[in-house]
Amino acid sequence: MSSHSEAPVTPVAAFEPPYYVAVFTTVRTQNQNDFSVTNARLEDLVKDLPGYLGMDHAQTPGGLGITVSYFRDADALTEWRTNVEHRSAQERGRAEWYQCYTLHVAKVERSHGFTRA
Amino acid sequence: MSSHSEAPVTPVAAFEPPYYVAVFTTVRTQNQNDFSVTNARLEDLVKDLPGYLGMDHAQTPGGLGITVSYFRDADALTEWRTNVEHRSAQERGRAEWYQCYTLHVAKVERSHGFTRA
Repeated sequence: MSSHSEAPVTPVAAFEPPYYVAVFTTVRTQNQNDFSVTNARLEDLVKDLPGYLGMDHAQTPGGLGITVSYFRDADALTEWRTNVEHRSAQERGRAEWYQCYTLHVAKVERSHGFTRA
Repeated sequence: MSSHSEAPVTPVAAFEPPYYVAVFTTVRTQNQNDFSVTNARLEDLVKDLPGYLGMDHAQTPGGLGITVSYFRDADALTEWRTNVEHRSAQERGRAEWYQCYTLHVAKVERSHGFTRA
């Protein structure tokens, strides 16, 4: 859920498995009222959540957005999913901001990273 | 690994768990020689792989790219990872195309989708 301006220039690192990943793939509507401010607020909130590991976001202009969030365990993810402010934003997303989306929650079994020397 | 022009306008659907997801998050170099043609070739190849379910891609201009591929089981993913042409492309990616990347392979435990009425 990173806004573009805050998008990191490097991907979130590979962690030691197991950990959890939430893949949230979206197409937005024309109505993005309050989206940016809500998104920034949610980013602040999730960063304080014990077990939150990080987030990557990419957005094709006029196309798909993909937000991938990483959590230490399923409990941390449940905590985030049921957060009151997050729930409210989810409802507003369905009512206004998203044309369609898919969410996949998965347990990471292996991971690795590469950085150019 | 979809090129932008081939990016679907809707996310890949939620499948019945369990299935596998490979999250590949990249920052590209300035050298993208042959990237598009190789990418298109790999897309053709993976579509023929038994157990391949689909792929979503998003690319922030000048920023992160995220490609999420879905597979029915771990064997299908292993088949793809070890495909000879894919292996060759992976080597070229490290040599030329990618500044850095992270790959997370995970087993999906739950998923759902939303489409505006």
